[in-house]
Amino acid sequence: MSGLRFEISAEDGGARSGAVHLARGVVRTPAFMPVGTAGTVKAMLPEWVAETGADIVLANTYHLMLRPGAERIAKLGGLHAFMNWSGPILTDSGGYQVMSLASLRKITDDGVRFRSHIDGSEHFLSPERAVEIQRLLGSDIQMVLDECAAYPATEAEIERSLALSMRWASRSKAAVGERGAAAQFGIVQGGVYPHLRQRSVHELLEMGFDGYGVGGLAVGEGQAAMFDVLEATVPHLPKDRPRYLMGVGKPDDIVGAVLRGTDMFDCVLPTRSGRNGQAFTWKGALNLRNARYADDAAPLDERCACPACTSYSRAYLHHVVKSGEIIASMLLTWHNLTFFQDLMRALREAVGNGTSVPFAARFLTQYRGGKDGESDG
Amino acid sequence: MSGLRFEISAEDGGARSGAVHLARGVVRTPAFMPVGTAGTVKAMLPEWVAETGADIVLANTYHLMLRPGAERIAKLGGLHAFMNWSGPILTDSGGYQVMSLASLRKITDDGVRFRSHIDGSEHFLSPERAVEIQRLLGSDIQMVLDECAAYPATEAEIERSLALSMRWASRSKAAVGERGAAAQFGIVQGGVYPHLRQRSVHELLEMGFDGYGVGGLAVGEGQAAMFDVLEATVPHLPKDRPRYLMGVGKPDDIVGAVLRGTDMFDCVLPTRSGRNGQAFTWKGALNLRNARYADDAAPLDERCACPACTSYSRAYLHHVVKSGEIIASMLLTWHNLTFFQDLMRALREAVGNGTSVPFAARFLTQYRGGKDGESDG
Repeated sequence: MSGLRFEISAEDGGARSGAVHLARGVVRTPAFMPVGTAGTVKAMLPEWVAETGADIVLANTYHLMLRPGAERIAKLGGLHAFMNWSGPILTDSGGYQVMSLASLRKITDDGVRFRSHIDGSEHFLSPERAVEIQRLLGSDIQMVLDECAAYPATEAEIERSLALSMRWASRSKAAVGERGAAAQFGIVQGGVYPHLRQRSVHELLEMGFDGYGVGGLAVGEGQAAMFDVLEATVPHLPKDRPRYLMGVGKPDDIVGAVLRGTDMFDCVLPTRSGRNGQAFTWKGALNLRNARYADDAAPLDERCACPACTSYSRAYLHHVVKSGEIIASMLLTWHNLTFFQDLMRALREAVGNGTSVPFAARFLTQYRGGKDGESDG
Repeated sequence: MSGLRFEISAEDGGARSGAVHLARGVVRTPAFMPVGTAGTVKAMLPEWVAETGADIVLANTYHLMLRPGAERIAKLGGLHAFMNWSGPILTDSGGYQVMSLASLRKITDDGVRFRSHIDGSEHFLSPERAVEIQRLLGSDIQMVLDECAAYPATEAEIERSLALSMRWASRSKAAVGERGAAAQFGIVQGGVYPHLRQRSVHELLEMGFDGYGVGGLAVGEGQAAMFDVLEATVPHLPKDRPRYLMGVGKPDDIVGAVLRGTDMFDCVLPTRSGRNGQAFTWKGALNLRNARYADDAAPLDERCACPACTSYSRAYLHHVVKSGEIIASMLLTWHNLTFFQDLMRALREAVGNGTSVPFAARFLTQYRGGKDGESDG
């Protein structure tokens, strides 16, 4: 339980700002974690990821266990050395990708047997193996293996799935034992059913984790339902432990979730959108493929200090997006990650100043009025 | 004719080292020019291109005239501002790409009519239009439009093509007039026929250019034939003008051509190979896809100071190449361009020390003995 120290420096309604102290560095919260799926935040060098203001990155157990393999990474000195990122790394458990990418899945109480989406090879992931893989990678924050239920699902289906996830959480907690300095987060499941979410929180608290993920959201339920679940869940979580809303999200999702007491986020949106020619700005998302930018000498976002905005015009970005040039992915990913980190910084400041609610209102008005309309990811 | 000043600081047999002084900067020679086809050296930021040691980049008239268009780039402040490269830029005339990429080409004495490979739109390139486009781009060194004859070709075909290229060169010279500070290079053609090469040199010298390209090589004739052509051509070129071997080449081509008195080179090999998982080293080219690198904790090239070599293992590079990650293209392109610039620096030093011949012998022995065999591009 000594894997992290969480310090809350300010509270503003349900929102809070602070810092997660880990052996490899301090994560300022609310925090956005760029996704470094296969040992790289796509189209970025790790030095740039740090320059955007990110304190921590996420890496995917599923991808790395299949290629290049957790034992191989361990032999090469661990994931930090392998991918040249010396700051903290949070690893997921692999469960979500097994459900969404692998084929021929067979779930039993033991774990999940599946075939690799890369080469069809057979693999087995159990709560214990997920802990072992994350230990081999050298993760700073481990997530427990859970079952990610499909959406929509009946209450009975969610209840059955939740029971399995809670048994797995207990085994994950037992497996991590005293064997290392990594933190371990449990994951609250329970779909859109408040009493199941609360049952999940209750069971996880009995086990006791360093922090708590809220899983199974942003899977199609919509923002209003997601916020309802947060409002039914977060007040039951211990105040002194970080809360991580997994796989979220869009800028307005993040703003709303921070107001509802969430501390940590991850999402592929800024990186994936960057590779697809979409740029996030304070005035909404822009689609750089749009011909209206072909002669636009203005910067992407005049408030942004990233290289895409300080050294290039929208016309240039339009040109390289249209031409399929790699620099388009590099610059737009850099910009989007900078925007997400700037947003997190602004949220931390607003919480610190006690202005998070008016900040959120101003942000949403400006962001949703954006020219190319709101991003849908 | 005031577009450049060429200074020779050392000579060693046929080889020389020196500097081309241009309004936007000094190009140390022998020089390798990275290719920035469509306003970007693929997978690189311009700052990195400069960090590799490159003093000048090449941009392609054909690509830029089609997308985003020369007039558009001029309105946006010229190519340097557009692509964020403040150093010198050499532009080709577009002729080579028209021959290799465009469809429905129709060549007349006036110029060449063709359809874009991007959208099928019809375009016309004449010697005068090629000069105009390069002026709109803001090129520092313009190349004249020439016809790139197919290989192999009969002596009669080459003679006819050469005559057209020389008429076009004369019109290009007339078109550039006194309208700017850019330098203009003529291009020696004549296939593998020494007397035609010499006729071409003679006619170009009568027109008088700031420098001389040697074109129509590295098109399949082989290294020995290419060196034969250089030996039959270079001694007839004026000593006090830079000589540019166009589209060359492999490291051993460059070394041999420097010994034969060539000053400037360009080739897509380091950038394209980088995107294909191939790395150039002093011990030959390595194919990072090779499974032998999966557990190799050593750096790509222990002599190299580029980020790929100082911050990553061969095992990591193998992983990201196999996984198709953009960072693989970024790191390997950076490495390859660093290698090419390190090679040019070593050649300049060897010429300065009067040791270019033994340097070349040592280089070739080591390079050709490399583990994965010689690159064929």
